[in-house]
Amino acid sequence: MKAVLILSGGLDSTTLLCDLLDQGYEVSALTFDYHQKHKKEIRCAKATCEKLKIPQKIADISVLGDLAPSSLTRTELDVPEGHYAEESMKQTVVPNRNMVFLSLAASYAIGIGAQELYYAAHSGDHAIYPDCRPVFVSAMETALHLCDWKDLTLRVPYVNLTKGDIVKKGLALGVDYSLTWSCYKGGERPCGKCGACTERHEAFEEAGARDPLDN
Amino acid sequence: MKAVLILSGGLDSTTLLCDLLDQGYEVSALTFDYHQKHKKEIRCAKATCEKLKIPQKIADISVLGDLAPSSLTRTELDVPEGHYAEESMKQTVVPNRNMVFLSLAASYAIGIGAQELYYAAHSGDHAIYPDCRPVFVSAMETALHLCDWKDLTLRVPYVNLTKGDIVKKGLALGVDYSLTWSCYKGGERPCGKCGACTERHEAFEEAGARDPLDN
Repeated sequence: MKAVLILSGGLDSTTLLCDLLDQGYEVSALTFDYHQKHKKEIRCAKATCEKLKIPQKIADISVLGDLAPSSLTRTELDVPEGHYAEESMKQTVVPNRNMVFLSLAASYAIGIGAQELYYAAHSGDHAIYPDCRPVFVSAMETALHLCDWKDLTLRVPYVNLTKGDIVKKGLALGVDYSLTWSCYKGGERPCGKCGACTERHEAFEEAGARDPLDN
Repeated sequence: MKAVLILSGGLDSTTLLCDLLDQGYEVSALTFDYHQKHKKEIRCAKATCEKLKIPQKIADISVLGDLAPSSLTRTELDVPEGHYAEESMKQTVVPNRNMVFLSLAASYAIGIGAQELYYAAHSGDHAIYPDCRPVFVSAMETALHLCDWKDLTLRVPYVNLTKGDIVKKGLALGVDYSLTWSCYKGGERPCGKCGACTERHEAFEEAGARDPLDN
């Protein structure tokens, strides 16, 4: 079975990549470069694909940062620190980002004749990012099928898992988490303070494991 | 009322622009450059916006041509000639193009605080382009609203009009059709043979008018 996976280079999508390979899928990874400050995420996705010998397409969608400003793409806006509190995290919402990602990924998947399109939204995303919710995913699939792309199924297998569940699963699959990146800031080392770092820390804690980036 | 309009530079969206201005909307035009061969379409959109003093954003989405090949973007594929027969026109379908356009346009509209997002799909598009059908538009609006972008309404007022109806309406509004472009080929003059030229010719015939490009 041929599948396209949206691979950011973070914990969740990297785990899903290994999960799909373990299930025997022929996976093509699609990574979006939207001129995010945390470019290291893209370098991690690339390193993982090279290590696992997976074909990867890196698509430049700087147009999204151009059309819709957010603190993840604009240098004049600061990435907020602290927990994923609604107020601070809302600044990191690129309006409608996942709809754009899914639409472009669907174009790609249809073009290469893939039957399934995967992305790694998880339960912890729902509160802050409305476009990670199951009902949204389902509405997008409806739209796709109405488009006569009936051969393409949209899959979000982690939508009811916590990030801790995902790390547990990944450790069992032998995922190399040293080749993943979460921090929203642009540094060489994780800042340890932004929402993404906080969430990552909690996920490893929940899985009872040590993050290889914590050195 | 602030509205974003997806303006291609063709008959339909140019007519809709004049229609919205006539109704008193504050319109921002959004034009997609997907490295289509018919660049003249974009130059026409620009000329119309300059003439009407409308703010216009031209967004480079060459990524779409990169991700999903079609005869409209790839120089090695020929644009088919003749009527909008299903077989020949299918080659011009950029897979999932309108979902990509609508998603990006929604990001833009949300970013600038517009209340309505317009695009000029019409009844003649339905047969060949599934992503111009009313049920698709409705599914996309559902997805948007599930994303908490409840303040944005998706509008496709021409979805039940023929292209002839649109030209009739445009002539009554004083649309300058010399500043519009339809031909899918890259020439300086319309080829008169491709599906877009054939459809344009029929629209003016149906409206009982002369196309200013027919010189």
